[in-house]
Amino acid sequence: MYAVILAGGGGTRLWPLSRTARPKPFLALAGNVTLLASTVARLSPLVGPEDVYLVADARYGHLIREQLPDVPSSNLIAEPVGRNTAAAVALAALAIDRPADEVMAVLPADHLVVDEAGLRSALATASRAADGGHLVTLGIRPSGPETGYGYVVVRPDQPDRSGDVVPVERFVEKPDHSRAVRLLTSGRAYWNAGIFVWRRDALLDGLREHAPDILTALEGGVTAGDLAPAYAGLRRTSIDHALLEPASLQGRVSCVPLDVGWSDVGSWAALHEELAEGDARNAVRAEPGSDALDIDSRGLLVHAAGGRLVVTVGLSDVVVVDTPDAVLICARDRAQDVKLVVDRLANDGRTERL
Amino acid sequence: MYAVILAGGGGTRLWPLSRTARPKPFLALAGNVTLLASTVARLSPLVGPEDVYLVADARYGHLIREQLPDVPSSNLIAEPVGRNTAAAVALAALAIDRPADEVMAVLPADHLVVDEAGLRSALATASRAADGGHLVTLGIRPSGPETGYGYVVVRPDQPDRSGDVVPVERFVEKPDHSRAVRLLTSGRAYWNAGIFVWRRDALLDGLREHAPDILTALEGGVTAGDLAPAYAGLRRTSIDHALLEPASLQGRVSCVPLDVGWSDVGSWAALHEELAEGDARNAVRAEPGSDALDIDSRGLLVHAAGGRLVVTVGLSDVVVVDTPDAVLICARDRAQDVKLVVDRLANDGRTERL
Repeated sequence: MYAVILAGGGGTRLWPLSRTARPKPFLALAGNVTLLASTVARLSPLVGPEDVYLVADARYGHLIREQLPDVPSSNLIAEPVGRNTAAAVALAALAIDRPADEVMAVLPADHLVVDEAGLRSALATASRAADGGHLVTLGIRPSGPETGYGYVVVRPDQPDRSGDVVPVERFVEKPDHSRAVRLLTSGRAYWNAGIFVWRRDALLDGLREHAPDILTALEGGVTAGDLAPAYAGLRRTSIDHALLEPASLQGRVSCVPLDVGWSDVGSWAALHEELAEGDARNAVRAEPGSDALDIDSRGLLVHAAGGRLVVTVGLSDVVVVDTPDAVLICARDRAQDVKLVVDRLANDGRTERL
Repeated sequence: MYAVILAGGGGTRLWPLSRTARPKPFLALAGNVTLLASTVARLSPLVGPEDVYLVADARYGHLIREQLPDVPSSNLIAEPVGRNTAAAVALAALAIDRPADEVMAVLPADHLVVDEAGLRSALATASRAADGGHLVTLGIRPSGPETGYGYVVVRPDQPDRSGDVVPVERFVEKPDHSRAVRLLTSGRAYWNAGIFVWRRDALLDGLREHAPDILTALEGGVTAGDLAPAYAGLRRTSIDHALLEPASLQGRVSCVPLDVGWSDVGSWAALHEELAEGDARNAVRAEPGSDALDIDSRGLLVHAAGGRLVVTVGLSDVVVVDTPDAVLICARDRAQDVKLVVDRLANDGRTERL
């Protein structure tokens, strides 16, 4: 098995730490290791660094080489621009020179996983299922009716044990709250973590059937040795939408449920949930060269990365993120609205802060 | 009349803006003018800058000269170290070469006054009373049972109109809440703003009677042309405690009540109270070179002075103070506890942040 990691960027809800020049995968949000480096490290020994490939915007090549010294630099597939995950996965299928019947795992570069052995075990299970031609998705056992995730719904009357392989009935895009509650109640729904396992030939067959425009354009680009013209016209769509959804309706998708302490770290509130400790539920962190001091706060997240001292006193449910040129102080239950800040800065043309 | 402004420093509750190297009087907390410069400016035309004197720690001489270019530099009386206000006032009485029967006004350097004409009018009234030999204090009409101020209690059955001169019965040091409520109910209590008006000879007579140790030591220092040995042994006490309290018991102190929008800006919460505007009661300020952006906060004070962008989202009753090497985020009702932060930094030997 080899692994393709999609390091596309993004993470505007993690502003001001996540920036255009250094987006979310390249940040050390928990511990001292970046999300990208953690993603690669936790695959070993199931998939070693020499079998890890990356698809990313060309401008992040230097960050990837810096953060992943053990991954051969020829394993980096540079996209001229980002065009969402369908294009990235299709490019991986075409551009990586591996046997057609070998199993490929696709993983996002910017998630957290607590139980790393559990993830590897699920990937191994998925690999065996993929060997038989299935398109396999990993389904995170949901801990609540989250509206920020897509869901994978498996067929009724299936066993529900981690490590099983169960047939997928359909995918559901981010639901509203009442639908999320119904999904949870059904006992058949898992969060779609964007982790997929399939044989390269099964992937190519699926793309040729469900997304021929993307595959054909990229084949042309790869053959010509110049991706830029092909990418310029590509539609932006996710691999979930382009391939998994239609294939699931054909009964070709399976799911491996797992429960490994997964988070997509989609916002500062999500990071707080991962890191908060003790009765006070605080998570106060300072990067080297920065410092943080708290007195009597509760439900606090501090990420000090501005090279300065951050002092908090008596706060409740607040997020503080300090960087050299911008500091964010946000009510924790407004963490989604950090996107509004980024939009406002973009509208005001203040690109130096983005 | 001439004016003596006590620019002693302090303001630890306004950390991290107020620092040892640039304490509270030298900060522009409201508008673009420092508290010290505002204090001098609002005396004119009653007292022009040539008749303004300053008593301050020698190390602040350069800040004073920079901020008060119209005050002759010979009007700066430098103390070798700070020893509270009794020493500073006694030094002013001895070291400033003005006629013995001329009236001197003493004012703190670090307060805010909205109605500046009202202050000058009260000072003029006080000056006439002081001409007859009284020690006169200005009494701020209280707006609530504050426990952070000392009180001046006038004799019963006196008229209570701004601009009157009423005899003082006694001074009360910072009361607890129930005593503050009783003081307010009495209708005879005013906040002690530390603004005093007296003839120089009346001041010297009072000091010779009630604080002879301080006066004698400083006379020796002034005569010898070296204040350092005298200051080394001086007791630290306020002019209120050393002179006004005992003199009031002798019936020698009068009060001029006034209502001029006064604040001692004793904490970030006090500054918020002065500056908050609109239904949301926000006060968001950025110094030149810094910037601030708020979305949907209430009861917020932002003072951006770190040369960076400060973004706040959805906060309630929070204070944010940004400086180049430290940022404070404090629940507004915990503003008094900023002193704890300063104490903690001092105990940890982190003097570079003080």
